[in-house]
Amino acid sequence: MGGTIVKLARQGHRVHLVDMTNGEPTPHGSPEIRARESAEAAKVLGVERTVLGLKNREVVHDLESRHKLAALLRVHRPSILFVPYPTDAHPDHVAVTRIAEDARFDAKLTKSAIPGEPWSPKRIIYYFCTHLRLNFSPTFCIDISDTIEQKMASIHCYRSQGLVMESGLGEMVRSVAAYFGTRIATRYAEPFYSHEVIGLNGIDQLVVEGR
Amino acid sequence: MGGTIVKLARQGHRVHLVDMTNGEPTPHGSPEIRARESAEAAKVLGVERTVLGLKNREVVHDLESRHKLAALLRVHRPSILFVPYPTDAHPDHVAVTRIAEDARFDAKLTKSAIPGEPWSPKRIIYYFCTHLRLNFSPTFCIDISDTIEQKMASIHCYRSQGLVMESGLGEMVRSVAAYFGTRIATRYAEPFYSHEVIGLNGIDQLVVEGR
Amino acid sequence: MGGTIVKLARQGHRVHLVDMTNGEPTPHGSPEIRARESAEAAKVLGVERTVLGLKNREVVHDLESRHKLAALLRVHRPSILFVPYPTDAHPDHVAVTRIAEDARFDAKLTKSAIPGEPWSPKRIIYYFCTHLRLNFSPTFCIDISDTIEQKMASIHCYRSQGLVMESGLGEMVRSVAAYFGTRIATRYAEPFYSHEVIGLNGIDQLVVEGR
Amino acid sequence: MGGTIVKLARQGHRVHLVDMTNGEPTPHGSPEIRARESAEAAKVLGVERTVLGLKNREVVHDLESRHKLAALLRVHRPSILFVPYPTDAHPDHVAVTRIAEDARFDAKLTKSAIPGEPWSPKRIIYYFCTHLRLNFSPTFCIDISDTIEQKMASIHCYRSQGLVMESGLGEMVRSVAAYFGTRIATRYAEPFYSHEVIGLNGIDQLVVEGR
Amino acid sequence: MGGTIVKLARQGHRVHLVDMTNGEPTPHGSPEIRARESAEAAKVLGVERTVLGLKNREVVHDLESRHKLAALLRVHRPSILFVPYPTDAHPDHVAVTRIAEDARFDAKLTKSAIPGEPWSPKRIIYYFCTHLRLNFSPTFCIDISDTIEQKMASIHCYRSQGLVMESGLGEMVRSVAAYFGTRIATRYAEPFYSHEVIGLNGIDQLVVEGR
Amino acid sequence: MGGTIVKLARQGHRVHLVDMTNGEPTPHGSPEIRARESAEAAKVLGVERTVLGLKNREVVHDLESRHKLAALLRVHRPSILFVPYPTDAHPDHVAVTRIAEDARFDAKLTKSAIPGEPWSPKRIIYYFCTHLRLNFSPTFCIDISDTIEQKMASIHCYRSQGLVMESGLGEMVRSVAAYFGTRIATRYAEPFYSHEVIGLNGIDQLVVEGR
Repeated sequence: MGGTIVKLARQGHRVHLVDMTNGEPTPHGSPEIRARESAEAAKVLGVERTVLGLKNREVVHDLESRHKLAALLRVHRPSILFVPYPTDAHPDHVAVTRIAEDARFDAKLTKSAIPGEPWSPKRIIYYFCTHLRLNFSPTFCIDISDTIEQKMASIHCYRSQGLVMESGLGEMVRSVAAYFGTRIATRYAEPFYSHEVIGLNGIDQLVVEGR
Repeated sequence: MGGTIVKLARQGHRVHLVDMTNGEPTPHGSPEIRARESAEAAKVLGVERTVLGLKNREVVHDLESRHKLAALLRVHRPSILFVPYPTDAHPDHVAVTRIAEDARFDAKLTKSAIPGEPWSPKRIIYYFCTHLRLNFSPTFCIDISDTIEQKMASIHCYRSQGLVMESGLGEMVRSVAAYFGTRIATRYAEPFYSHEVIGLNGIDQLVVEGR
Repeated sequence: MGGTIVKLARQGHRVHLVDMTNGEPTPHGSPEIRARESAEAAKVLGVERTVLGLKNREVVHDLESRHKLAALLRVHRPSILFVPYPTDAHPDHVAVTRIAEDARFDAKLTKSAIPGEPWSPKRIIYYFCTHLRLNFSPTFCIDISDTIEQKMASIHCYRSQGLVMESGLGEMVRSVAAYFGTRIATRYAEPFYSHEVIGLNGIDQLVVEGR
Repeated sequence: MGGTIVKLARQGHRVHLVDMTNGEPTPHGSPEIRARESAEAAKVLGVERTVLGLKNREVVHDLESRHKLAALLRVHRPSILFVPYPTDAHPDHVAVTRIAEDARFDAKLTKSAIPGEPWSPKRIIYYFCTHLRLNFSPTFCIDISDTIEQKMASIHCYRSQGLVMESGLGEMVRSVAAYFGTRIATRYAEPFYSHEVIGLNGIDQLVVEGR
Repeated sequence: MGGTIVKLARQGHRVHLVDMTNGEPTPHGSPEIRARESAEAAKVLGVERTVLGLKNREVVHDLESRHKLAALLRVHRPSILFVPYPTDAHPDHVAVTRIAEDARFDAKLTKSAIPGEPWSPKRIIYYFCTHLRLNFSPTFCIDISDTIEQKMASIHCYRSQGLVMESGLGEMVRSVAAYFGTRIATRYAEPFYSHEVIGLNGIDQLVVEGR
Repeated sequence: MGGTIVKLARQGHRVHLVDMTNGEPTPHGSPEIRARESAEAAKVLGVERTVLGLKNREVVHDLESRHKLAALLRVHRPSILFVPYPTDAHPDHVAVTRIAEDARFDAKLTKSAIPGEPWSPKRIIYYFCTHLRLNFSPTFCIDISDTIEQKMASIHCYRSQGLVMESGLGEMVRSVAAYFGTRIATRYAEPFYSHEVIGLNGIDQLVVEGR
């Protein structure tokens, strides 16, 4: 959802990335290289990021992980949580989503051992980063025509994952964004899902005029 | 969708109501009474309205009706068409929706006998006014907490339809709006449906903070 | 689903409530106060209740919890299990539903260490008590026009949770029941969901005549 | 839906069949033979039937057909209309369903030229008789274990359509009923669909105990 | 579905295109130009085509149109009919689909005035060519990586429709095909929909190995 | 999915069954009897089988189970994993599916402690063996008219589970297969589900000609 991250940041929203793990090991990476690459990517996106420090490839949905993330939510006090779509082939993604869903609730509890002041993120919205070849049914899309290049550039920061790129991942990401662009009549768009009904205070940001 | 009509008008959008028929006969009405009541209702909503003049209770989806509406679309040149949800128990509603869907396309044709300059409404959005007791699955809702009373007042202008009101219609309308309010964390809301994916240019009008 | 609980009890069905936890801690409650309030609510509903004793806020879907509930199922031998809808924001609700789904199966096993005689609840039905603002798609609704006041009264027994009430929860519960009433042509109704297809032996209890 | 017809008739409901056309021509039938066969089938089902007289293979959804059926609805005054599922390969089935949906509304109009006193069937329910090989998603099923043989016998009354039978239609009908029986834990069942939410006044006719 | 047309023709299937209208008038075309362009496009696709001759922009779903197409089906005797997806913004597309669905049934009738020997196309499959920005939910996709260029070339034969192309239609078509390619792990794919359940005699043509 | 197993094996595919547990205890079985019966069933199906050795009735979705299965996947290197449909009443089925989904991903990891060479099964497909009376919505069906008897015979190998059979399980299995046969116009068929869009390289194995 890199295009939306850049867009929201430009529109004045505070956006903070949380890496649930350090992303390593991978075939050709190392914790140091990955840290450098992800810092660079955050810079491209124009936002800050924090590593929560769960164990890559072994993320488990348990109370400890929930409370660890809840404590971080109390620090940054977000209104909206963006988390991976719940149906995925990557075990860590699935676990992360379950942790985040529960941590959102845990963060508002009083009389708990979780550090910090109670805080309740108002909404949880899912972005599509799945390792499954799902046909996404988005609740809404965000027009990212103006920020597609930053999105692509942030992905290409991960030079240690070069083989993945060569196998067509970059092209696939662009194709998916172009397709959802065709669905809302813009050049590029990113799809989002919400279990909850979407409420609007007006239609001024609805994409109406087509290309 | 009276609450949304008032809201959009207040936010500076031009809203124009089209009555496909004059609404008569009904058990206790007459064309004159109905015209007076609907003019009053439009005043309450703060918008203008036009009667297209199809035959009430016998609206048929045909080329003549399509072209008649297409000509009107060329006069008012709307960006968005709001039409009744396609699944309904009222034959006129179902026919009107089919006419409007096609007229939207007809209106943009060059080399046609339809009067006026070609015009293409960019989007078609369905509001829920069905005579079926469907469980609506809205694409999005509009917060109408500030305009619910105008919505109710516009309905109550139809004094000749009093028996309908006494049978609980007014209460039902309010219950439905209150329910969709609970779904987006406002007091009242109106549900809308779109076949097309909804695109947003930002999230500034997304209802986030709950009651 | 308080309205349905009262209704089923009045129609001669044996209804037994199981509190998976004692519900505490909460901001202004205590185990003693909560026990008193929930006993009072059960009295209003006209049924008995048991506390299973899992740890509030930390309910975990594991073998121990499953077997603990399975043992209780063997005592009360229900035909139908009513459990919370599986998609929810409250971690305990989600875990409770998973525990109940599995305990239902565990309860019928022979050659197991679970105390009591094997018993298999025939159906599992989900009620909607979610902390998510889902647009429910019920499999069926139960008319609770005659028991709505008992439902509301049972909620108001929880005086220690007063702030929650003041923030509009009571009103929201009534709005949701009124909405589903409009969907089945009664004053109030409660929605239910079933993964399994619903089978009927006749249509004598189908709500047909509208208001 | 023959099994349900027999069952409802046995339970004391008044059931009336309306043949929209006389069903002819077919490859090996004639109007006289068909009339005899369908009278025999009605006798097997234990109900009466009327032929509306639209033109077989050329049924069209228009005002005339709607009003013709509306007049008949005013004679028999049904609470529930059972009509074919709207998605079908047979053009007459599709047209009949549209006619019935609209006639249901037309029948309640005052100040109309339709003969008889206004009457409004309260619900419309769809049965599955499609010529498409759809995977039905029923709203509910009716247990027809006790009436499956009458259902099969009524089909076999249509001896002039023998080739159809020989091609496996009878076997297919039984397979579909057996499958939906497995879905509600009975030997045989018939599936039904409703656009509207189903409301129940209790669960006494819910199939609970499995085979 | 040009990519699939080329592919099926190459694999030895007989593919015949039916233009329901001559496609004119359009802003910059004429019947002669359009005929030349569509002949050229058919040549690129490697198949033959017939013009049925309904009136462009005024296609109506009626018995005459159904029987006209049914007669043509009796000439070419196809096993599968590919028709436009039923939900569309183009009135002619919607009408054509309804005509084709019914003509498929009409074509098999004996004792009818339709010319030719009875014939029943076994399946009807919908391709996505909608003027609505739907998020397609395909029943299956066909890999067209090897025929994408023929597909694009056939579209570019319509030089008289150049403005449409310049407005991005060609690019949109490629983006949609690239997206569905990402969904089945090939470079390009075309989506198809079937009301009926898809049956397979094996999995040898299932795309398994990803890019 | 026994019919499909036999069919795929006959068509030259290598099929390997993995029993996640030894299936015991059951009311009238023993590990030895079960091993004998399942070996016999595999012989009837014409394939080999391996017991992974998780604990029956207590299968838990955890890292250890995932890695255990991942190691086995590296031995057999399947292209497709067939696993139980994720919504089920049997706790072991639900856990097995979650283990398999994750093990599929784990199996491809480099730099891991999982024995064997990295391997990535390309697709995961769900078969329907649920203890819930779901109305399956298959992504596709496989025609098993030629292998239904082997399917039934393999089930009947489990003589120690005789009471289950007597209660109608065998008949239910046949009814479900007959129903899905009616859906694809063959005598018998087995339904399958895929989260991912199905891609085809042609339509030669599509069931087209009906019975």
